[in-house]
Amino acid sequence: MVELPKPVRELISFFERLPGIGPKSATRLAFYLINAPSDFSKNFSRAVIEMKTRIKKCRVCFGVSEEDVCPVCGNGKRIQTTICVVERSIDMLAIENLGDYEGVYHVLGGVINPLEHVGPDDLELDSLFGRVRSMAGNGHGVEVEIIIATSPTMEGEATALYIKRKLDEIDQSIKITRIGSGLPIGADLEFADQATLSRAMEGRKGL
Amino acid sequence: MVELPKPVRELISFFERLPGIGPKSATRLAFYLINAPSDFSKNFSRAVIEMKTRIKKCRVCFGVSEEDVCPVCGNGKRIQTTICVVERSIDMLAIENLGDYEGVYHVLGGVINPLEHVGPDDLELDSLFGRVRSMAGNGHGVEVEIIIATSPTMEGEATALYIKRKLDEIDQSIKITRIGSGLPIGADLEFADQATLSRAMEGRKGL
Repeated sequence: MVELPKPVRELISFFERLPGIGPKSATRLAFYLINAPSDFSKNFSRAVIEMKTRIKKCRVCFGVSEEDVCPVCGNGKRIQTTICVVERSIDMLAIENLGDYEGVYHVLGGVINPLEHVGPDDLELDSLFGRVRSMAGNGHGVEVEIIIATSPTMEGEATALYIKRKLDEIDQSIKITRIGSGLPIGADLEFADQATLSRAMEGRKGL
Repeated sequence: MVELPKPVRELISFFERLPGIGPKSATRLAFYLINAPSDFSKNFSRAVIEMKTRIKKCRVCFGVSEEDVCPVCGNGKRIQTTICVVERSIDMLAIENLGDYEGVYHVLGGVINPLEHVGPDDLELDSLFGRVRSMAGNGHGVEVEIIIATSPTMEGEATALYIKRKLDEIDQSIKITRIGSGLPIGADLEFADQATLSRAMEGRKGL
């Protein structure tokens, strides 16, 4: 058995580090690039670098942006007093893709996770509280709603609770909501896991 | 709904063109790179370019190689008169990974596919026949075996037949074999498709 040339092995190892790509797919991708026209590799490589140099974080919501302020935060028609708090920019994209959310966002950059040494200070939490404080303190009696849309995982729930507690300290009148969880649409009750099912029962609504 | 910044959309479109990566995975990969340390993007981008500039085709078997002649063809211990004909370099890797094949390879670079305008001249077929001719014609009576390991698809089978006919014209004494096909190990007979099952029946062996 003969080893692959080093440049190929190196590229495979980079692909393997991407999420959802195992050793087999990584090899397949590398071999695809070997056989692709050399323009493709050149442009692909340039796109990777360009994205990194041209994309920054919006200084209001910390989502991805080409400008200092992203198009959502800069849009006067969006309701600036409804803030949906998400873990990552890609979650913001998922909600944007629904097409009917009219508020703005705040991207935390992760969740509180003591096992992986991610504490509140490693996330964009102070900036969130700062935003809320400046809105709540303006005394105009506008209703501020914070929708906490972290994932319904253990860490996501803990982060949601942490945020709720802190916001309550800032101003009791802030409306704090959590995205619903329960059975996904189209799911089969028989195959639902216990945690999801018990959440679905707790979250039952009058018809 | 707000559009993603152009550099992100561009990178997503590159990822989408890679095999087995749909729009969702492509987005996920691009966002992963946004959040990864900028060294990772830089090195990844460099690895893509390096592989393209440093990898060439072996001038004997047309497999990937850093040198003019790949380590398999250049290895005196490999049986140079047993040639396994494969479609792509990655197929060569799959057989190498078995660890017990002692012959050499010939990478066609695809299969004959009239629908996609791939004819015999677009593949490394003449070079294969040249290799065989030089071995068969040396008069030392060495047994030459050509193992045709193209995929058991319609195009792969047609290419195998084409190669067999041409080799028969060169020298009738060449041993030509085709890799076995039938039920994959661990498969359930009940769920096998008809073509595979009928091939498995044809290919039955005495016990």
